[in-house]
Parts: sequence; structure tokens; C-alpha cells
Amino acid sequence: MQALFEDMAKRISGWLSGKGEESMVVLSTRVRLARNVSDCIYPSAADPESREKIVNYFSSVYTRSEKLKRGRFLSAGELDPLDRDFLVERHLMSPTFMPKPDHNSRGLFVSEDEQVSVMVNEEDHFRIQGLAPGLSPDVAWQMVVDMDNEIGRFLKFDYDNDFGYLTACPTNVGTGMRASVLIHLPGLVITKDIERVLPKISKMGVVVRGFYGEGTDVLGNLFQVSNQTTLGVTEKEILEQIASVTRSIIEDEAKARERLLAEASNQIIDKIWRAYGILKHARVLTSEEVMNLLSAVRMGIAMGIINFIDIPLVNEILLLSQPAHLQKFFGREMNSDERDFVRAEMVRSKLN
Amino acid sequence: MQALFEDMAKRISGWLSGKGEESMVVLSTRVRLARNVSDCIYPSAADPESREKIVNYFSSVYTRSEKLKRGRFLSAGELDPLDRDFLVERHLMSPTFMPKPDHNSRGLFVSEDEQVSVMVNEEDHFRIQGLAPGLSPDVAWQMVVDMDNEIGRFLKFDYDNDFGYLTACPTNVGTGMRASVLIHLPGLVITKDIERVLPKISKMGVVVRGFYGEGTDVLGNLFQVSNQTTLGVTEKEILEQIASVTRSIIEDEAKARERLLAEASNQIIDKIWRAYGILKHARVLTSEEVMNLLSAVRMGIAMGIINFIDIPLVNEILLLSQPAHLQKFFGREMNSDERDFVRAEMVRSKLN
Repeated sequence: MQALFEDMAKRISGWLSGKGEESMVVLSTRVRLARNVSDCIYPSAADPESREKIVNYFSSVYTRSEKLKRGRFLSAGELDPLDRDFLVERHLMSPTFMPKPDHNSRGLFVSEDEQVSVMVNEEDHFRIQGLAPGLSPDVAWQMVVDMDNEIGRFLKFDYDNDFGYLTACPTNVGTGMRASVLIHLPGLVITKDIERVLPKISKMGVVVRGFYGEGTDVLGNLFQVSNQTTLGVTEKEILEQIASVTRSIIEDEAKARERLLAEASNQIIDKIWRAYGILKHARVLTSEEVMNLLSAVRMGIAMGIINFIDIPLVNEILLLSQPAHLQKFFGREMNSDERDFVRAEMVRSKLN
Repeated sequence: MQALFEDMAKRISGWLSGKGEESMVVLSTRVRLARNVSDCIYPSAADPESREKIVNYFSSVYTRSEKLKRGRFLSAGELDPLDRDFLVERHLMSPTFMPKPDHNSRGLFVSEDEQVSVMVNEEDHFRIQGLAPGLSPDVAWQMVVDMDNEIGRFLKFDYDNDFGYLTACPTNVGTGMRASVLIHLPGLVITKDIERVLPKISKMGVVVRGFYGEGTDVLGNLFQVSNQTTLGVTEKEILEQIASVTRSIIEDEAKARERLLAEASNQIIDKIWRAYGILKHARVLTSEEVMNLLSAVRMGIAMGIINFIDIPLVNEILLLSQPAHLQKFFGREMNSDERDFVRAEMVRSKLN
């Protein structure tokens, strides 16, 4: 089982390639669609047999579709806890999906390039997700539309002429779509302007959440910007809204960074170089610390202060630093202390 | 005036050469003698004219002695505040000597190799000091004896057949001698064993004080070990006592380091490498931070963890990081922010 994702663990996810617009600041764009098969009970209310039926439906699409066949379809029963963590870290499934193995009543499809995935029997029968690097709502959208159409060739979805797509949770009814952007805002955090910017954004019908924060900590100054409304708006409108709000946040971030360089240039440059110095020399590193240090390095690259490291490398270290990735990368299970040690080893070797 | 010590500022003091016994742990050994000219009132009770008379006595020795002539004799009036700080940082005079210029009633002699200095009109008429690298009480002693004899060829000292040499403060009466050792004890500090070792040392009639601490902070884990008693013991006994107590502290320190490496190896090695990484990359460094980071690096060198830096370089950076040295080194007066910036620049260039 360990070997399941060994190949994957050694390469960077496509959505972290550092390509795509605004990729200095925007890591990735995600679009997901909620779809349910007509006349089948929603997963949360369904018994295991009914859920397995949905898995079988998808499985049959998987084997019949030329397009899907090139990807992988994994059933929950095939995955050990490390595999599941690995897939969550890679943003291929949500953390609440498959909290424990439940054999064959859930499944995950991952496309060959890892940019499209389908969670089968999450909150809805299908959650189709497209992930693209940088600020690329149209690219991510096109990927999920293609997948939606492909699955739709074989299965009929719950659709209401008035409401649109029907979903398990009413907040997803309509387009069934959520678009989100993973964005790096160290300037706004350091200047504390984030406290002024977030309420402004909320009024625009968009939610901004700190990323991967346990408790209230925002790790690595990463935020997720996503749409709140799915009903009464078109998909195109949602994509445009996310793009335009993101561009406005990018401008605020740029202004914050300019101000930092004007008012506290030495302190900021010092912070960036110290972060690099610690990453390059530390022998023990937690994943949280790596996220925070990489945040400073990423800002340093964007500001032209560090010019010998590129964004794809920062993304790669960010990805590989996560606990399950680290274990897959080194090919063995490790406790937290061991991980902190080999994480520092991995970071040093990547920076050399 | 600025140019007064420019040559000195570019070179390391002889006592920081890293040579001498136990120089991984012991930075330097200092011996000083208190001497007073017969039938002259002690400095604290003397009027400026009487003090000037003593300066003139010394000045006359300076010009007549072949040995002294090769050094420099500076009168307080020649020195601006930066010069005075520079000499204190270089351990050539005490911080309380010449707190402000008082023209010609105080003076400082410095030998050509900077290992012997004489403060004229500090607490006593003459404070003769010898500084040697490493644990070298005999070397430092020989230097002050030679100087004592040389001055004694021209001037008669206050000496009592019962008490020995007479001094301004009764604690110095007798030999008039104080011997001290500057020692680096990071292992004892980190393990907190220092709290157990210090009281043990005190019972042996020796004082241990944190070095250059403002308030209660011990900077750079540096301690000064010195004798408490000057009366009723011979010079030889004091020197032997300091050497033997120091050797016992060195053993305690070695045990503490072994224990650290056995019990928290990764954490200690991490601390050492992070310190190096910050020194090598920071853009802003206070002198206190440099002392603390160099402490970790020095321990790393002694432990064989860092093998591409030598102790003389660590000593040189320690010396040059101090505010007055930094300004002499760069040849201009600077405020604290500017110093923190150029200090980081100097440290980086020295480590390259």
C-alpha cells in the first residue's frame, strides 16, 4: 500500500507548477461542481448499499470512458490512513472525506495530470474538482466542465428547471459550483491591513479564510478566497467575481509590500534572509515553521530580493514538507520527531 | 581623532588570537596588579593637580624606558567618547575608567602587542594589566611582572612589610593582584547546571560573574572567573587557584555538553546550525544577538559540528561586532540602526 503513491510523491502536483497568471501571489485556483445522480438518495442519508451503488455507477463510467480511463479510481478500502492524508495534502480530496476506511462505499477519481478529481459520495454523489496553477478560473472551469460533460454522457444528474442542479446542502443548489483561489498575503498580514481588507471583501459576497489553520493561526500567510452564493448567479458570474475580487486583493497586497519596503526596508529584507538562512541550515523543522519560513522566502522572490530560487521550488518544498508527503517521499512511516529531522534534511537538499 | 585606532580596529587583539591552552572554551586570561606611588595621595582623594603629577611620573617612565617606548601612552584629553568605548571593548581599560574626558589627569598605556596596559589614576595610581589568550595565567602573570619591574626601576611603590602592597581599596591590599579568566559555558547554561556549579565555585574563594550583562542577562554565555582574596596568599597561589578552578569548570562544561549531545542531539545541532544560518544571512543584527549566535557557533566548532570556521574568526567577529569597533572599522560614526545594518554586513563578509 505504501508504494501506492510513491511515484506521485516524488513529483510536484500540476497545480503547484508555479505557472499561470499572478503565480507569485496566487498559488492555485480551484473550481468544484456538486452533482447528484437522478433518483438516488443523497450520501448522508443513504445506507452503505445505496452508496456502493453510486460507486459502482462511477466505476462503470470510469471503465467505459476513454477520457477517465487514463486516470485512477481508488476505492476507500484500498487506502490506508497515510494514503488518505497524502491525498488531502495534495488537495485531491477534502479532509472530511474518508475520515476512516469504509470499504467500498466511497471512492476517489484522480486524472492522469492530477488536475481533475472526483470525490464519490462526499456530501454529494460527485464532487468534481479542477485545480489549476495561478489565477486561472477559466482553465479550472473548463476542466470541470469537460469532466461534468463526460460523466453526464453516462449518467443523468438531478436537475430542476427552476433551481438548477440539486445538491445535498441547499447552499450549493443552483450552479452547484464553488470557485476558490489560494493566495499568499504576507504584506497584508505584516502591515495588519488584512483586518481592513477582509471585511471589505466579505461585503462583495466572497469568503476569505486562513489556510490550514489549526485554531486561529493562519499558516504561511495563505488565504483561501471563495464564492458564497451558488444560486441565482451564473457560473460565468461566479468566475468573474472571484477573478475580480482576487485582482483587487492582489493590488492591496502589492501596496502593503511597497509600504513595507518604503517604511521598514531593512527589517523586511532581514526577515526574508533569516528565513532563507534557517531553511538552509536548520536540522529540525516542523511543517508549520516551514510554511511560515517559505512565506517569507516567497515574498522575497516576488520582491526580487532572492533571485536564485524559483516559485516552483518553493511550492515543491511546501508540498513535500507535509507529514504524509514526507513519509511517502522517504518511503517509511515516521513519528513527529523523526519527521521534523528528515523534513529539515529534505529542505536543505532541495535548496542546494 | 577618528583615525587614532583605525589600524588597531582592523586587526584582532592578541588576547583573542585563539591560541593558548583550552582556547575552545577559555577566551582569555587577565592578571592585573594595583600599584601606588609612595607618598602620593590616592586618585579618588586627590585634586586634579596631584593626579596630573602621577600622569607626569608615568609619562616620564614612558619616555625613559626602552621597553615602554614601543607602546603608546594616551592621555584622557586625547580621546573622544568613541575612542574610550573602543578601548573598553578591547579590554584595554575598565568601563568606569575615563567615563568622560578629564584632560590630563588620567592616562592609558598600551603595549605594542596590546597584551599589556596600564591605567594611570584609575582607583589606584597604576593598574597594570596583562591579557593572554586561552587559559594562560603564567603568561599573563609574567607580562605584568615584567611591566611592574620596569616601572619599579623608575618609581617607588607603596609597600608595607606586613601587609604587602597598599591599595586604595582594602580588598586589593597584599598582592594587589586579581587574576581572571573569560570562559564560555553554553553547556552549563543550557542544561541549567550552572546553578549548581556557581555556588560550588564560590565556596572555593572564586567569583564567577556573567560577562557584559546589562541587567541580569549573561550575554553569549560568557563568564568571568576571578579571585576574591588578595591578602594572605601569594601570587603563585592565586594563579594556581584560578587555573585549578577553571579546569574544574571546563570539566563540568564538557560533561554538560556530552549530556546535551546524548539527550538532545538534534536540538543542539539544530540550534548551532540555525545560529550559523542567521549570522550568514541576516541583514540586521544587534551586538547582543551576535554574541548569542556566536556562542552557539563556538560550541559547534568545539563539538566538531562546524569545521569550516575557526576560533580566531569567531573571536574576531565578536570583537568587531561591538559598537565602537564597528564604527572604527567602517571609519564613521553611526546610530544604532545603522550599526545593526553594517554589523550584519560585516558578519556576512567575515563568514564568506
